[in-house]
Amino acid sequence: GRLVPIYVHNPHLDALKDDILYHFSLGTGSHNLPAMFGDVKFVCVGGSPWRMKSFTEFIAAELAMEDPKSEYPNICAGTDRYAMYKVGPVLSVSHGMGIPSIAIMLHELIKLLHHAHCTDVTIIRIGTSGGIGLEPGTVVVTKQSVDATFQPKFEQVILGKTVVRSTDLDQSLAQELLQCSKRLNQFETVIGNTMCTLDFYEGQARLDGAFCSYTEADKQEYLLKAKEAEVCNIEMESSVFAAMCKLSGLRAAVVCVTLLDRLKGDQLSSSHEVLNNYQLRPQKLVGSYIKHNLCLPTICINIKT
Amino acid sequence: GRLVPIYVHNPHLDALKDDILYHFSLGTGSHNLPAMFGDVKFVCVGGSPWRMKSFTEFIAAELAMEDPKSEYPNICAGTDRYAMYKVGPVLSVSHGMGIPSIAIMLHELIKLLHHAHCTDVTIIRIGTSGGIGLEPGTVVVTKQSVDATFQPKFEQVILGKTVVRSTDLDQSLAQELLQCSKRLNQFETVIGNTMCTLDFYEGQARLDGAFCSYTEADKQEYLLKAKEAEVCNIEMESSVFAAMCKLSGLRAAVVCVTLLDRLKGDQLSSSHEVLNNYQLRPQKLVGSYIKHNLCLPTICINIKT
Repeated sequence: GRLVPIYVHNPHLDALKDDILYHFSLGTGSHNLPAMFGDVKFVCVGGSPWRMKSFTEFIAAELAMEDPKSEYPNICAGTDRYAMYKVGPVLSVSHGMGIPSIAIMLHELIKLLHHAHCTDVTIIRIGTSGGIGLEPGTVVVTKQSVDATFQPKFEQVILGKTVVRSTDLDQSLAQELLQCSKRLNQFETVIGNTMCTLDFYEGQARLDGAFCSYTEADKQEYLLKAKEAEVCNIEMESSVFAAMCKLSGLRAAVVCVTLLDRLKGDQLSSSHEVLNNYQLRPQKLVGSYIKHNLCLPTICINIKT
Repeated sequence: GRLVPIYVHNPHLDALKDDILYHFSLGTGSHNLPAMFGDVKFVCVGGSPWRMKSFTEFIAAELAMEDPKSEYPNICAGTDRYAMYKVGPVLSVSHGMGIPSIAIMLHELIKLLHHAHCTDVTIIRIGTSGGIGLEPGTVVVTKQSVDATFQPKFEQVILGKTVVRSTDLDQSLAQELLQCSKRLNQFETVIGNTMCTLDFYEGQARLDGAFCSYTEADKQEYLLKAKEAEVCNIEMESSVFAAMCKLSGLRAAVVCVTLLDRLKGDQLSSSHEVLNNYQLRPQKLVGSYIKHNLCLPTICINIKT
């Protein structure tokens, strides 16, 4: 089929002699971005730098591309804002916590993929979340990202004025990920809406922050209203991720595991072992998806011969 | 004078058997917080974990508390969400980028200081920013944190409803920091308003993001309006920092260096050496302030005898 490029929407970029991707410590003047990144077909992003490094090691093993002697250097070693790893056509980037942090990363990632002339890129956020009425450890593939009033929109402030953007994600990709999880058959996966908030404590109706002005009953009422709006889980990055990927033509999905059922509590009191096991689930699902969908050059040759 | 405690405003906290500070990988059940943190009098926070480690090394030398053999272990080594270091009464914590990221950290920091029974704590954010009409390298001590419409308020969403909070900072602390910079006499420092945005690119009228729908003239008009509202610099954390510190009774200040003049450009194209030198300035100012205001036990004894 036709190759789908990465769309930047900024006429000013052409006038820049160099484009410095400051928070990656990369740039068009200092790095050969097409040589470094031109083959990227899958980008996986997640909050924690450690998790994105471990995902790279996992995907290298999955794709049988690992070399026991090889290490995966942090491509953004010149900064501690984000970490970035690459194995074959899979790029893995951390984004920190919250909408502003992931938005900075996505602006620079979209420009990076554009400068590198990448085409047909799929991007998946693998993360953690609080579930609503789901068994902890359930993986949620996001249907639609909604705000704190359960509306599927992201409000971007530009020059002091609010612009509303759509938070649509690729529905066929979400279905493919669900099918992939069924084949994998290792844990429960559902498709549902994901609420994206600007705050982890008061913004998610938690009772255990430094400040709390509402009751347990108020909390339950709010979370049950979210459940009626088909919200399955709550996290802090999906809305701007969906909005920016849609604008740039990236096929995008959000895959988050639920670490607890918020109807039953607020604190993450499960053991580190249990929580770590849960956090591996989105990695396993997305690793399996990439393996299933990636036409590695050697495999292509085998099929043709 | 009377000892000022750290105020949490949450009646539910008393009912918690353990309080798990998840993003610090600390908790009341697993750690003796009064023993670990009870002597804290100054907390310095900044976006980058590396910068907060280097600040701890710097302050140890400033206060002549350093031991050449000693290292400063990351107290939050069990997680990669934030990094935390301590030397004597000075705690240094990273907060990542953006309002949601610093808000999670502050909820858990305020609870930590409360559980540790700390009193009379001063907290200072040391950061980087874009300046408006200032020579790059100028340090700005924030008078008031304003939003993208230049209003001194922070909007917190609670149970889907917006609550407006004040972003007042401690004016006497700001004046003391300005005086301290005059004594230090190493770089220009001014007091002015700081605009806090949810986005680094479109949210700050930059022309070099992945998306840009406005002209250079629109950008200049917006930034000049900000300047008329006495905005000296733009960053991404000060509003929620001011709001949460005010609610919890922490004496708070924001000290950010300007890395560039946004009226003249958007890209951070100065050399790493120049930018690193600029980034040391808030550390030097706050280090000098702490040294000047800290009554170390040995010094107190010397004065008394």
